[in-house]
Order: sequence, then C-alpha cells, then structure tokens
Amino acid sequence: MISKGNLKYIRSLQIKKYRGLHQAFTVEGEKSVVELLQSDFDIEAVFATDKFLQKHTALLKKGSLVVQTSEEELAKAGSLESNNAALAIAKMKSAQPFQWNEQELVLALDDVRDPGNLGTIIRIADWYGLTSIVLSETSADFYNQKVINATMGSFTRVTPHYVSLPEFLEKRPKNAPVYGAALQGQNVHRLHLKPGGVLIMGNEAHGIRPEIMEMVTQPLTIPGRGGAESLNVGTATAILLDNFYRNI
Amino acid sequence: MISKGNLKYIRSLQIKKYRGLHQAFTVEGEKSVVELLQSDFDIEAVFATDKFLQKHTALLKKGSLVVQTSEEELAKAGSLESNNAALAIAKMKSAQPFQWNEQELVLALDDVRDPGNLGTIIRIADWYGLTSIVLSETSADFYNQKVINATMGSFTRVTPHYVSLPEFLEKRPKNAPVYGAALQGQNVHRLHLKPGGVLIMGNEAHGIRPEIMEMVTQPLTIPGRGGAESLNVGTATAILLDNFYRNI
Repeated sequence: MISKGNLKYIRSLQIKKYRGLHQAFTVEGEKSVVELLQSDFDIEAVFATDKFLQKHTALLKKGSLVVQTSEEELAKAGSLESNNAALAIAKMKSAQPFQWNEQELVLALDDVRDPGNLGTIIRIADWYGLTSIVLSETSADFYNQKVINATMGSFTRVTPHYVSLPEFLEKRPKNAPVYGAALQGQNVHRLHLKPGGVLIMGNEAHGIRPEIMEMVTQPLTIPGRGGAESLNVGTATAILLDNFYRNI
Repeated sequence: MISKGNLKYIRSLQIKKYRGLHQAFTVEGEKSVVELLQSDFDIEAVFATDKFLQKHTALLKKGSLVVQTSEEELAKAGSLESNNAALAIAKMKSAQPFQWNEQELVLALDDVRDPGNLGTIIRIADWYGLTSIVLSETSADFYNQKVINATMGSFTRVTPHYVSLPEFLEKRPKNAPVYGAALQGQNVHRLHLKPGGVLIMGNEAHGIRPEIMEMVTQPLTIPGRGGAESLNVGTATAILLDNFYRNI
C-alpha cells in the first residue's frame, strides 16, 4: 500500500518546484521502470504490483524502498490512465559540464515548450545514439512526468544540459558549424551532412529566436511537396537526424 | 450563442456512431477552420467569435449557418482547452474508389490505433505531397476530433480510403513493390528508394500483422545506433517518406 505521506510526496513531484527541492522525479509503467532499474540512476522507492515484483526480482537489489501495491493505487498516484506494473521515485543526477566531442552532432533545443515533443525528441536522439541534449533554459523540463513517459525509457541514456544558448554557441570549438531548422534554408537532401557541430531546433510556434538564428551558419530545410505549412518539431528533428546519420 | 440543440449535436459528433449517422464531423481552432473554409468540404455550420468572423468574412460565403459565439462557449462545445476562434461542422465526403498512380507512393496503415499518431501521419503525408492514405478497417477513424486537430489542416488535402488490406494488396498493379516498416528489414539508407508501390506502417505495439507481412516484398528498417528499442510510428513514417522523396 502507498502511504498517505508517500502519495503526497509522489504528487508533489509532478510540480517542477518540488522536483527541484527534492532533486527527485517519478517514473511510471513497466518499460520505463525496468529501464530505470537497469540504469545508474539512484532510486528512492519502487511501488509495484505483485506481478511486477515477481517478474523483475533480479532488478530490485539496490537497497531502495520497495512497496507492493495495487493497480488502482498506481493509477491514483501517477499520471497514466492505467498502470498494472510500477511507479518509481528516482534521484536526478547532478548537472555535469558539457563535454564537446567534435565527431558527434550536438542537438540543441531553443525554447521547445511541449513536454510530449521534448520526450519524443529524446527518444529520437537516443535512436541515433546521441548521449546528451542541450536545452535553452526556457525549454520544457526534462524531468516532467509527460516528458519521461514519452521518452519510453530513453531518459536513462540521454543527459540534459540546460544552458544559455548564446553563451553555449559562443564557446563552441572553432569552425564547428551551427545548423538550424528553418523554413527558408538549404535543401537538406542536397547536402551531404555528417555528424559534428550543433543542430538547433526552435519553438513550436515561433521557430528559432532571431538572436540565435544570427549565430546559425547553415540553415536547413526539409523540402515539402504538398500543402502542409510545417512539420511538428519532433517530426522535423527525426528527419534531420536521419539526414545527418545516413552517410556514416 | 450556441443553442442547446446545436451543442448536443456537436457533442454527439465526438462519437463515431453519430458521425456515421450524420455523415458529419467537427473542426476546431483558427488554422483548421480557415483551411476547412478554403477547401471543397461542404459546411453545415460555423460557430465563431466576433474577432474570427471579422477577420475571415471573405471565407464565409457558402450559405451555411454562421453563429457568433464566445470563447467560453467554444471551449465548452469542443475538445480544445481554449479556442478563441471557431468550431465548424462539416460533411464527410462520400467514399471514392482508390485510383492507382504508379508514380506515387501509397501510404497504407495496418491497424494504427492512436488518433494522435494518425493525425501526425496525415500531416506528414501532406508535407510530402501524398493526396490519399489507405487504412485497414481497424485503424483509428480519420474524422475523430483528435485526428482532425493533429493534422493541422492537412485533413483537407489527404483523402482516406478504408479497405481490407489483404484484398487491396492483391489488387495492386503487377510488379508494384510492397514495402513494410520492420525491425529486421533492409537498411533504408542503403537503398535508393523512389516513389511507387505501397509502404505499410503497422500497429503501435505489434507492428504489421503476420498475414500482411507475408505480402511485403521489401521490409525496410531505419538503422538505429543508440539504446532506444523502437521509434514511434509517426516518427518512423516521417523518416521513411523522407527516404522515398529525397531522390526526386
């Protein structure tokens, strides 16, 4: 059973202020909790059904609180409509300085606000093997429950770095290109893109901010042939990363 | 003001059975309603704020019912949290037989259930200039409000064809390839794909059904380098269409 105190704690972690205060966040559902248990995140507590506990006994070795509970309680505590598996509380990792690697593409988000979009983008980044993501301070919170859910476990492999984007770009290695997704850029199909440099994706409604766009050395466009005015930022990120990683 | 009768009618159209009965569906929000008014759909009624009516007077010529209303009423009637523009009721188009065009790729969905995914896929299809989409009878309903919202207006340019997929594939032109998204297919980056044939995308959890997979002549895989097990079906559709349309 989830105690009243724990229920209150879990619910408080839906709010960014309290996540910051406790340096903790919640993870729900079988796949996500299993990936969490297999990762190097510190875990405070796992609330799980008997079925989950029996199936994943081997993963539950970390000396954290383990509480058996019911599907009804999991649904009440978390954000999923139904959850027949588990909900865990994990500690955030302390922020690490960003390490430049000139062979790797750096994906940077300028004010991407929608948690579902951020989660989708983290999952795509993980698919293409990126191990970190750079975010403007105004972007959605990596540890938001909707973000964590949408990553489908990829939050365990992609490390967030919240930065002042102009400062970050100024400090980049000399000659590292800055690509930016734009409606009026170069046709991405005609360039032979390779990983390296920074790729900036902008806000859902307004795109990349003008002061950041000034620092872009190569605007990129995905050519469209139909009537749609734009692509969703997650969709565009997927297509652009595929264009960077198709030639290697 | 939206009358009680109209409010009841609008709400009934959130349910597939009543959409079928009335052969009508609802469209919400400024962008979507504007695209609807510019399209060749027949329109039964437009409920809109004074601001919307003044801005788009020129579009409101079709002799349909036009009712001025408030933001509060629009939010109450529709599914959007806030709607400061309009909600319209449009007639479905009568089903047309599918026309094969050997130069065009046919996008076919096998049991794609999530309305948000279907809407995203329609928007992507429109971006690449596809004018129709083929769906198994078990796929999400094209006229579902969440689908319409997620298309961002692209529902006006992409025509749905609900079919029995096995029969549809059997009747295809001779030699038309059948591509299928799969986890164990050929590397899509090493093929020089061109539009033509059918591309099948499968169910969110189970992929393409085995009986359909038997009819696939060329399974396709997007190579991943990281830890993510899979991509969302909308994301995968976007990357695959980009690979088909990058060489033309």
